[in-house]
Amino acid sequence: MQVSALAPNPYAADCPTRSLLDRIGDRWTVLVVGLLALGPARFSELARRIDGISQKMLTQTLRGLERDGLVTRTVHPEVPPRVEYELTELGRTLTAPLDALDAWARAHMDSVLDARRAYDQGRASA
Amino acid sequence: MQVSALAPNPYAADCPTRSLLDRIGDRWTVLVVGLLALGPARFSELARRIDGISQKMLTQTLRGLERDGLVTRTVHPEVPPRVEYELTELGRTLTAPLDALDAWARAHMDSVLDARRAYDQGRASA
Repeated sequence: MQVSALAPNPYAADCPTRSLLDRIGDRWTVLVVGLLALGPARFSELARRIDGISQKMLTQTLRGLERDGLVTRTVHPEVPPRVEYELTELGRTLTAPLDALDAWARAHMDSVLDARRAYDQGRASA
Repeated sequence: MQVSALAPNPYAADCPTRSLLDRIGDRWTVLVVGLLALGPARFSELARRIDGISQKMLTQTLRGLERDGLVTRTVHPEVPPRVEYELTELGRTLTAPLDALDAWARAHMDSVLDARRAYDQGRASA
């Protein structure tokens, strides 16, 4: 498959859209962007609302989103300094597709769990 | 954060929607489901159209999708046997959110690459 400079195509191995899919489909990205869609937030607030995320993983996720131009990090010169994360205009374009993913997972979780049970039973009795 | 049995919530660490996000946001899932949305396909056809995917990764992805009830695997009793993969009804509900993700990656790739360059230059000169 050829990559055209004019047509980004994640089916081509060397197209950057493929690694971009990793970034945007990542579970932590979905959850962080979902919260920032509600408004700017501090690190501690995000950490508290995403149950079980490690400090390191949240830091990495926010830094990746910042590098990709999806989130800004603003240090407010107060004592102690207040650091806030906020979606950029580009980041806000991502909220609709990620909300759809989140909604799909919530809506179809039971069907998927049923399917898994049936599949595992089928293999156990085969 | 509490998990209610009635309200799936990926912000809770022990809710299965969280691992479900990993499955559906995975780059290979996006690409495989994108192809199967066009119609049933054989393994070799999928392998050829997803440039650079390993046999092992394609096998794992298809098996995961089958286990989750999103894809069926049908062996047609021919010589040699023909094996086809096809989206289930549940799998078809996933095509719209994943198409949106694919479309976002294609549409915004240039903006993201520009942002990355600017970020990396900022850090290099800091």
